[in-house]
Amino acid sequence: MSYSNLQAHFTRISHLRHIESFVRWDETVMMPPAAAAARARAEATSTLCSVIHAMLTEPKLEKWLLASERRLAALNPWERANLRRMQRAWLKASSLPATLVEQASSAEMKCTHLWREARSNNDWNSFHPALESVIAIKRKIADTLAKTLNCDPYDALLDAYEPGMRSQQLDTLFAPLRPLLPDLIRQAHNRRPSPWAPIGPFTEKAQQKLIERLLRTVGFDIQRGRLDVSHHPSCGGVPDDVRITTRYNRADFTRALMGALHEAGHAKYEQHLPAGWRNQPVGLACSLGIHESQSLLQEMHICRSKPFLRFIAPMIRKAFPGHASRQPDAFNDKNICNLYRQVEPGPIRIYADEMTYPCHILLRYDMEKALITGHLKVSEIPERWEADTQRLLGLSNKGDFRNGCMQDPHWAGGAFGYFPVYLLGAIYAAQFFASASRENPHILEQIGNGQFAPLDAWLEERIWSKGSLYDSESLLRHATGRKPSIEDYVTHLHSRYLS
Amino acid sequence: MSYSNLQAHFTRISHLRHIESFVRWDETVMMPPAAAAARARAEATSTLCSVIHAMLTEPKLEKWLLASERRLAALNPWERANLRRMQRAWLKASSLPATLVEQASSAEMKCTHLWREARSNNDWNSFHPALESVIAIKRKIADTLAKTLNCDPYDALLDAYEPGMRSQQLDTLFAPLRPLLPDLIRQAHNRRPSPWAPIGPFTEKAQQKLIERLLRTVGFDIQRGRLDVSHHPSCGGVPDDVRITTRYNRADFTRALMGALHEAGHAKYEQHLPAGWRNQPVGLACSLGIHESQSLLQEMHICRSKPFLRFIAPMIRKAFPGHASRQPDAFNDKNICNLYRQVEPGPIRIYADEMTYPCHILLRYDMEKALITGHLKVSEIPERWEADTQRLLGLSNKGDFRNGCMQDPHWAGGAFGYFPVYLLGAIYAAQFFASASRENPHILEQIGNGQFAPLDAWLEERIWSKGSLYDSESLLRHATGRKPSIEDYVTHLHSRYLS
Repeated sequence: MSYSNLQAHFTRISHLRHIESFVRWDETVMMPPAAAAARARAEATSTLCSVIHAMLTEPKLEKWLLASERRLAALNPWERANLRRMQRAWLKASSLPATLVEQASSAEMKCTHLWREARSNNDWNSFHPALESVIAIKRKIADTLAKTLNCDPYDALLDAYEPGMRSQQLDTLFAPLRPLLPDLIRQAHNRRPSPWAPIGPFTEKAQQKLIERLLRTVGFDIQRGRLDVSHHPSCGGVPDDVRITTRYNRADFTRALMGALHEAGHAKYEQHLPAGWRNQPVGLACSLGIHESQSLLQEMHICRSKPFLRFIAPMIRKAFPGHASRQPDAFNDKNICNLYRQVEPGPIRIYADEMTYPCHILLRYDMEKALITGHLKVSEIPERWEADTQRLLGLSNKGDFRNGCMQDPHWAGGAFGYFPVYLLGAIYAAQFFASASRENPHILEQIGNGQFAPLDAWLEERIWSKGSLYDSESLLRHATGRKPSIEDYVTHLHSRYLS
Repeated sequence: MSYSNLQAHFTRISHLRHIESFVRWDETVMMPPAAAAARARAEATSTLCSVIHAMLTEPKLEKWLLASERRLAALNPWERANLRRMQRAWLKASSLPATLVEQASSAEMKCTHLWREARSNNDWNSFHPALESVIAIKRKIADTLAKTLNCDPYDALLDAYEPGMRSQQLDTLFAPLRPLLPDLIRQAHNRRPSPWAPIGPFTEKAQQKLIERLLRTVGFDIQRGRLDVSHHPSCGGVPDDVRITTRYNRADFTRALMGALHEAGHAKYEQHLPAGWRNQPVGLACSLGIHESQSLLQEMHICRSKPFLRFIAPMIRKAFPGHASRQPDAFNDKNICNLYRQVEPGPIRIYADEMTYPCHILLRYDMEKALITGHLKVSEIPERWEADTQRLLGLSNKGDFRNGCMQDPHWAGGAFGYFPVYLLGAIYAAQFFASASRENPHILEQIGNGQFAPLDAWLEERIWSKGSLYDSESLLRHATGRKPSIEDYVTHLHSRYLS
């Protein structure tokens, strides 16, 4: 009885989160700028969040949770996992005062709107005070949650994205990469191919049509989703209505294309979550690290593979027939493969290649830990950003805030503890794909023939259908038989860029 | 203290209604069809409505309302009007059980989705049971509210759209039109001009560009709004983010154009509501009748006037330069005026001209009263529709459900009591415009020169800035010095179509 009350209650919470996800999508994709400036939406969203928070902290919840815990034997493994997620959600929410949650949401919305404006003007000074407010509130939240979860403040934030993960584990996992990467990057950069860059312009319409075809090809169900445009590629919505965004560059179609395929990895995971557990915590994606592993598996292991690129090369030529016939060297199979094999350190994370990407993450991960512990002030970010960019990527980017410390929306939106999941996702993706390939050595060959079903079946069985039955580490062990390790990841980097 | 608690509480309710309006816009404009079929959104919206309902019925509200009533002398007129609206909202909500509200919202969402599908297939049979469910729940709601408001069940529903209005008043107001209209229509039809129909195709893009220019011209602030496409033209959102929709017909640009200008009338009202009363009941639009009066004043009295049409004719020719030069007779000033002067009975309400439109409303108004009292069964709608269409419009439309009793979204969405506000709006619009013209006889001349500011200033002072300070009848008296009457309306019809 108590457990079914909990299920009913969490269904209602899930409904409001469903609404929240579309309000946020609308804010990013649809809302006119002057409406954003009027702040009415920010206030409304903040109220919605506070209503959700209030529902997570209703006194009857504690009673139901305790009663369900006493009758644990009556629950099946899915229900038990569901109960664990509910307990966790309740524990975190009840340790945070409602006013603090509302303050955070409001400050984050405000800062995000400011970021959009200030970023396009390369205007660090007007952005910086809003970011300070966000971090001040975030540190209070981190301190409060840390006491509840009995962990470090930064880990309390990380836990929101990667439940159960601690920065000490991440540090251990990431440690061998720090000395390894600069050397790998140097070697790979020296051996990189020299492709012909296709010369545009490529109309948005033609790019969009091509991308929609490719999304259907890789199994994104566009009848249960959309493709739109936003500043930053993203994937939002709910399993039956997944909203992908990308952004088009008329001079270069390759980025929007691969960006959308990356988001398709997220989207397919959402669309294949267990339908029987909709609206329950256990029916949600396991963690953001696992989520990112699905987008990176899609992008790096499927879509940047030679068999896949050779498979879609005719579609690309068909999408831009004039360009392709005038620039045969740029549009042949080999050149298209080479376009997606570049290793070239650059300042922008979302444009980074697979090899340099982890450096962008390590830079942000170190810095956000220091911002939360208070060892780094907001005013010191630009200087630290420049120093770390020089050290990790061998680049100088001074004064270019827009392509430097203001390039990402994460911190403005209060998403501290998010960045490391990108690297975790890359490591998980390599481990999943290596495991699937060991069990079925023909996977890449099948992909080259447009057969995605065998790999999708493996992913569905081992990952997608499991929802949040396990935490990410257990999911990895169940799916691959091994604990998290960078071994397959490093092997993949070697074999793709150095052999 | 109690009153300020009420203000804070109603601000939060307004925030959730703000969210609701965008969720509904998304549902109409953005949501993919398979997502609608999955019902997740319908359930989520239904939960949001139930949360709003719960906030309207919290026990502390009654206490605060009573305490504020006792200290009425401390409140200024705006605060008193605000309190009246709050009392009304609380009274209505607390008389309805939450489960009934949730059932209604869920049945309406379901029926609306079904309507979209079934309508395009002309499929009355699969739609009809869903409409029955909606009406069954609606009748329960009407009965309950009728006891609370001490009025007839139908009037209890009407009150949601036109607070304080009763069907007896409407019947009295509308009565002289019933014998008058058929004769007026016959005369006007015989005297109608015979314009050249411009021959398309007119691309959606060119139509959209023209409409955006016209929207800016008439003072819709598109920085605080959007223009999109949906099945049914509409205006939603909130004052700082008003979302207009229209639909394009490649064979005929005139409908989308005038449809969007109609919605611009709604939008301007929203955008000019009193900014100091945002998120309070008294800051909202007075009633839907007044809302419709603003769209009809915009469409019928401004945008279909000869001075306006002559003013925009060069913009139309510029938007379709090839067509205009090949078809000079269709694109000259006089012909463009004549295109918007047609009187031609037809089956579809939203395509009806100004003269036949009231018949479409009288047909629906009579029928929905009978559906709510139980004198008409859902299964009898098609036959009654056919009979009334023959009687009022002299047309037969048998078996064409799509352009007959399934043409409107209102009943599927549970909006019973809505239709009469269209006619009420037409009557109010004529009365407002006649009054403004008496005070400033140069209004039409100014409009012909693109000067909208003088009329807008009158509307802002008398109507827009008043929010819900008065009910619609008092607003009319304050603005025009007269009680509601069809006199100016009939004069307008005569002078436009019969002189």
